[in-house]
Order: sequence, then C-alpha cells, then structure tokens
Amino acid sequence: MERPRYLEEIEIGEVRETYGRTITETDFVVHAGHTGDFFPHHMDAEFMAKSEFGGRIAHGTMIFAIGVGLTATEINPLAFSYGYDRLRFVRPVFIGDTIRTRITAARKEDDPKRPQSGKLFETVQVLNQRDEVVLACEHIYVVQKKEVAAA
Amino acid sequence: MERPRYLEEIEIGEVRETYGRTITETDFVVHAGHTGDFFPHHMDAEFMAKSEFGGRIAHGTMIFAIGVGLTATEINPLAFSYGYDRLRFVRPVFIGDTIRTRITAARKEDDPKRPQSGKLFETVQVLNQRDEVVLACEHIYVVQKKEVAAA
Amino acid sequence: MERPRYLEEIEIGEVRETYGRTITETDFVVHAGHTGDFFPHHMDAEFMAKSEFGGRIAHGTMIFAIGVGLTATEINPLAFSYGYDRLRFVRPVFIGDTIRTRITAARKEDDPKRPQSGKLFETVQVLNQRDEVVLACEHIYVVQKKEVAAA
Amino acid sequence: MERPRYLEEIEIGEVRETYGRTITETDFVVHAGHTGDFFPHHMDAEFMAKSEFGGRIAHGTMIFAIGVGLTATEINPLAFSYGYDRLRFVRPVFIGDTIRTRITAARKEDDPKRPQSGKLFETVQVLNQRDEVVLACEHIYVVQKKEVAAA
Amino acid sequence: MERPRYLEEIEIGEVRETYGRTITETDFVVHAGHTGDFFPHHMDAEFMAKSEFGGRIAHGTMIFAIGVGLTATEINPLAFSYGYDRLRFVRPVFIGDTIRTRITAARKEDDPKRPQSGKLFETVQVLNQRDEVVLACEHIYVVQKKEVAAA
Amino acid sequence: MERPRYLEEIEIGEVRETYGRTITETDFVVHAGHTGDFFPHHMDAEFMAKSEFGGRIAHGTMIFAIGVGLTATEINPLAFSYGYDRLRFVRPVFIGDTIRTRITAARKEDDPKRPQSGKLFETVQVLNQRDEVVLACEHIYVVQKKEVAAA
Repeated sequence: MERPRYLEEIEIGEVRETYGRTITETDFVVHAGHTGDFFPHHMDAEFMAKSEFGGRIAHGTMIFAIGVGLTATEINPLAFSYGYDRLRFVRPVFIGDTIRTRITAARKEDDPKRPQSGKLFETVQVLNQRDEVVLACEHIYVVQKKEVAAA
Repeated sequence: MERPRYLEEIEIGEVRETYGRTITETDFVVHAGHTGDFFPHHMDAEFMAKSEFGGRIAHGTMIFAIGVGLTATEINPLAFSYGYDRLRFVRPVFIGDTIRTRITAARKEDDPKRPQSGKLFETVQVLNQRDEVVLACEHIYVVQKKEVAAA
Repeated sequence: MERPRYLEEIEIGEVRETYGRTITETDFVVHAGHTGDFFPHHMDAEFMAKSEFGGRIAHGTMIFAIGVGLTATEINPLAFSYGYDRLRFVRPVFIGDTIRTRITAARKEDDPKRPQSGKLFETVQVLNQRDEVVLACEHIYVVQKKEVAAA
Repeated sequence: MERPRYLEEIEIGEVRETYGRTITETDFVVHAGHTGDFFPHHMDAEFMAKSEFGGRIAHGTMIFAIGVGLTATEINPLAFSYGYDRLRFVRPVFIGDTIRTRITAARKEDDPKRPQSGKLFETVQVLNQRDEVVLACEHIYVVQKKEVAAA
Repeated sequence: MERPRYLEEIEIGEVRETYGRTITETDFVVHAGHTGDFFPHHMDAEFMAKSEFGGRIAHGTMIFAIGVGLTATEINPLAFSYGYDRLRFVRPVFIGDTIRTRITAARKEDDPKRPQSGKLFETVQVLNQRDEVVLACEHIYVVQKKEVAAA
Repeated sequence: MERPRYLEEIEIGEVRETYGRTITETDFVVHAGHTGDFFPHHMDAEFMAKSEFGGRIAHGTMIFAIGVGLTATEINPLAFSYGYDRLRFVRPVFIGDTIRTRITAARKEDDPKRPQSGKLFETVQVLNQRDEVVLACEHIYVVQKKEVAAA
C-alpha cells in the first residue's frame, strides 16, 4: 500500500511494530546459500553445541535483512532510504526464536544538500519473543518537506 | 580456513579484496522471498523501466548481506563482529552487475569494557564492475590483544 | 497490517488492486522445485520454442499462488478463506510478464451453517502488463456480521 | 513419461494415487517467500501456539500447488488443464503432516466449443497421514476424442 | 510410479531417455548456495567473459545431480544404487543449454557378496541440445534376481 | 583465495579437512527441488519411519555435491577437475547428521595426452559426526608441472 507522508506529517515519538516471524533452520540455510557465508557458527550443530552459545546462531546480516524486511508493508513515495548508523548485534538469535521489528521516529534534521527534504532518524529495534532487543540501528530516511511542495 | 591473528598482527592499511559475484535476477527474487520485501523497486520491471533508474534496483540489505558474505572465507577465532557504522547505499546495483568487496584496516581503538581486546575499524567498500563504490560502511571488529594473551 | 471489517462494512463493487510483480525464470524454477512439476511446458526452452506457445509457460498453480499472494498485505481478523470457485487459466503467462491482481467485492450470501457470519464472494482477476486477464476465479470469504457482534 | 489417452480410454471410476510427501517447515518458508504471503498464521510460531490451531498452518495455495504437483508424473499429450471448481480447504495442514493426492475420474461432458474434445471432471482429494481429506477440488480436463481423431 | 523388475527382466541394450530441462542462471545460483561453491567460474560473468569459455560454466556436481535427477521418474523396489564409476565432465554446460539424460543397460555381473542379487551397469550420458555428451558415467545398480525370489 | 601449486609442490599423503556442516531437512527439500528427485526415500517421513532405515535418507547426489562443495575454499589456477572414480554411498545420511570432507593426496600419474601436466588422484572421504565414512570417491585432478613451466 502507498501512504505518502511529508516530513512534517511524521511525528517524533510515533511507533510502528510489525508482525512476528519465527526464524527457522530454513532461514539459516537460505541465508548461508544466499550470501556464501557457511561459517560453522551458523551451520555446524555439533560444533556449536559445545560452544558458549549452546547452538547455532543466526547471521547478523540475516537478522538485519529480515528485521528491515518485516517493515516493508507500506511505501512512502515521498521518501528514500539513505543508510543506517550504529548497527549493533545485541543478542544472538537462535533457531525457533520469533522476531519482530519496532520503529520509532526519533528526530529530524535539515539536509543541507537537499533543501526540499529533511532527514528523519528512526530507531530500529528487532525484538525476540521475550521482548529483548537482539539488533538495533538507526535508519536515516530522507523525506520531502510539505512546505517546499506547497511553495 | 582458520587464521588466528591478534590485534597487533593486523597492520593499518592492509587491504583484502574478494572474488567477484554477478548479481542475478535470481538474487533479487531470493532476497525478496527471504526478507518479505516485494516492493516494486525490486520486483516490477514494467514500473521501474519508466522510473529514473531505468530498471529494477537491488535491495540495499541484499548488497550489504552479499557484500559481507563475500568476505567470509577465513575465520579469525580471536575476533568477533561488534557491528557496523555509517552504512550507506551509494549507487544502485542492477541485475547483471558484478560486485566484489574491498576491506581496509583503517584504525584501532582501545575498548574500555574489554581491556584484553581492542577495536579494529575496517573500511568496507562494495564495488561494481566499473570500480565504482555501490555500498560503503565501517565494520567494527573486536580482536584480542597479544600482549594480554602473553601476560 | 490488521484491518478488521465486518461483512456490513464491505461494499459491493469495492475494488482493490495490488502492486505488480514481474514473473521471472527464477519463479518458474522455484515453482517446479517447490511442487515437483518439471513438465517440459515449464522447463524445456528448446521444446517450447517449437510449440504453439513459442516459449515456456508458467504453471497455472504458480500464477494462482502468486496472484493470491500479492493480495496478502492486510489481514481482516473477522474473516477466513473458505475456498475458490471457477478457477480458470485464461491466458498463458511467459517469463518476463508482469502480473497484478484485482479483487472486486461481487456479492454477499447468508451462510446457513454460520448464522453469525456471511459469505462474501470476491471476483479475483490476475492481469498482465497489457491489462489482459490471465487467471480468474471467485474467492469465497466468510466474514463476521456486525449485527451479531453488536447483539 | 508420456501416456497418450483419448477421452474414450479413460474410465469413469478410475483412481490414481500419488506418493506421499511430508510437508516441512522448509515448505512453509519457501511458499511464503515464493508468494509473498508472510501472514502470522503461517510464519509466527508464538502467535499460533496460542491460537485455536495450536501451531502454524500451511497456506491453502501451497497445499493446492503441491497436491497438484504430486500428480505430475505422466503427461497426456492429448489433454490440457482447463481449470478447477469447488476448491475447498477442508482441514488445516501442519508442519510434519504427510500428504498424498487421490484423483478419481468422476464424469465426462461434451464441450460445445470444442467438438473434437470433451471435458473430463476429476475429483481431486489431498489426504493426510490419517487418510483425512485436507483439500478437495474438481479438476476440469479437456481431452481429445478418439472418434474424432479416427474420422 | 513403481515398476518392479528383476535383474533377468532388464535387457542389455535397453535405452531410456528423459525429458529435457533447460539449465538456467537460477540453477547456477541455487547450486552455489546449496553446496557453498561460489567459485568465479560459476558466479562471475565479467571474469568468465574474458576466459577461454566465454561465459560462466555449470558446476560439474550440478550437471551430475540434475542429470541423475531427471531419471527419477519410476522406482524399482527390487534395486538400489551402489555407486558410480568413471564420472567425467566431458563438455562445459552454459546458462541456457538444455540437457537430457540417456541411460543404457550395458552389462550384468554377479555380486559375490550378494548372491540373491546381481550388478547391472548402466551407461549414463547427459546430452545437450546439440546431442553432444556433456557428462558421462557408469551407474552401478544392485538388482534382485528372479531365480532367487522364485526359489 | 587463490593458491597456485604445481604438481611437484603437492606431497603425497597431504591431508586437508573441511569445516563441518549439519545436513538439515531444508537441504533435503532444496535438493529434491533442485534435481526433481522427490522419491519417498527422501521426502516421506511416514513411509521411511517404517523402513529398515527408520527415517528419511539423504540423496546420494546431495552428499556428493555438498561434500565436494565443502572443499571449495581455495582455487588452484594451475589445475582443473577431470572427473571422479569409484563413487560409493557407504552409509546413509540422516537429517541432523553433521558431515565434513577429508581429502588426501593419494598418487600421481603422467597424462600422455597432456605432457605439460600430470594427474593427481585424491582420496575423498565424507565423514559424519561419528567419524564414519558416509561417501567415498577418488577425485582426478589435472595439475600443471613446474618443470614444464620452468623450461
């Protein structure tokens, strides 16, 4: 669904939370095959059973990609993704964990290079079924300003 | 292959470059299915043919995941990945582009919380077949110190 | 996104249309591998080049599954899917065609077995990039009645 | 294998049953990724553990596509698939259930638009490991007539 | 389909040929992801365009696995696969080539360890659309003897 | 990583062992879908629970392809793969088994057709988590000679 929103229409503090998705062994195998990272941390159950983690742990890039993917339910045609800051792998994710993503509009900033737009910084948190943060980052979103569109 | 290296053994300026990998239409479809992001920017050839890009563009999360995955050829058992900073989607990647990843050891920093280790900051650049940077970020790597291991 | 709607709140004639999705060679290969149907109509380019179709044609079950999948963007927690009638494969779909789905609320009917709900019949049409119908069917949706919930 | 059969050679009451196939968590993940339907009914183990079903249930379109795919072992070059009627999702299918498909030649009908062929209606039943019907529909198959070929 | 056949019922010289299957770029990507072999010979279009082959070439293990898979249309419950001899990668397979498999019953041998069975050696040839052999091997099949079953 | 080695530089008796990889139900489903072999031995848990094996067993072609794929970590640009001899499926592999591959340089032979190279025969063993051989074969590797390159 399209949902056009100008920068002024997004309120700081707004929170959006996605559906949950259970991370399966299949996702581990698919991500290894998709990226080529077959490190034993993700793929060798015997090796990881003896490790400090007690079992295979998800690729950080997978939790990031799926965590962001969970939010892909509506498109703001007045905005585009500029990048991410402070991406941190806070806790391991295991096979069978169920994750969801919470996005909070955190702050706005002018963008000197794009006067007709501004930057919206969103706090992205991926949570597990115990409401623990497993991954956190800040999404930088460049959004058009209404005042400019109106002028 | 395992290749144990202490923080002191990694020289600032060291560069490592991966093999190339051609990004295929299959990767677009697999990434959409893996993450659930079926936005028309990645999946609708008709819509994107009329856009400013002229064709479907890769998911940013895919170029990040595959770009990092390309580097997964040797394991340093004395280190772990802490996170990423300043992840930027610099240029679009199209079906048929061939990417590779260049990692440069950029600087070291003490880690007050982990005196036996330090932080290594690596500049990560994903390049296309024209040697243009398509994605850039900084990888934060926590690596054990030899002086501590020796003590 | 959840969007609860009682039967009375859905108007006959309402139309919903999805984003487009380009059907790729990858989808053909994935569907064959998912279902086990590797018939040459879908998998043998040489054989099909000489056929009346001039090329590989999509599995009917794939256009149905993807056509329905395109509509999976909002959940009505007051309804469930009962089945489909008159599913017809109207035109072949080729690699590179871009499909989208149009759903029209067609008519309502009482459901003797479920007095608290009624049946909503939706006309489902999968269209290609030339606006031709490639697949059609009628979806039977069982939706709760507001009058009953209110009582 | 090809097995050409004219309409007259197919006897009403003929039954064909396929091999079994265990529906795995992988199939759930593949179908979600193939169709874009990531609804929590299929993907969120936590949410479904608390539901009336007690666990994730298969997409109806998957059981249809795999159930039909199981029958794709021999090709009748004298016939083509016209469509399906009365497709019903009779019982939920869970991860670990083993399904097979039973096809019964049910009745024949003339096809006014195609005098050289007739319609064969086949009852399609997908059964689980307890021999319960989980999905049912009627397949409409257009098959050439021998009398016409002979004339 | 099951088709039980005793060793005596298989005639030397018997030939079976499968349907064709076009090897797609998708198959290359799936096989790399399935096996973890992302060597540039299979995955880097730029590098291979400059090579003696002029383009990406299929993994040998893929042509073997798909070539054998094409023959998996009927099961002989009186036999099992013992192994393969003289597996040779005769010609490269490129994206877009269409392969099929031809199996010829070549010779029989007693199996001292299994007096109730014998070994059937089958010549396996995978052919491309120009009828060139791209892969060859000898399949060793252990098949029950009728004389023993009858005794 | 590239690691050029002439035939003379490879010592008979050299052993290389790969990381482990747990064979998952996902791999079974992916391999069936990749090759088209959906035989109940690999796909029907109910049927196999009653068999002599007690459960689904891996496709032989999968253990071969993954076993070989595990070794694909370094490229010798002075060599190419000629084929495999005596490929044997020694023990069944079940869902959850963890395999790794051991390669031993076994013997060298002149290659009359290629005087500038020689054949290196490598013993390939795929082992499970109990160090039992599950698959064995001999890899024939054609490697350039240093004496020739030097001349």
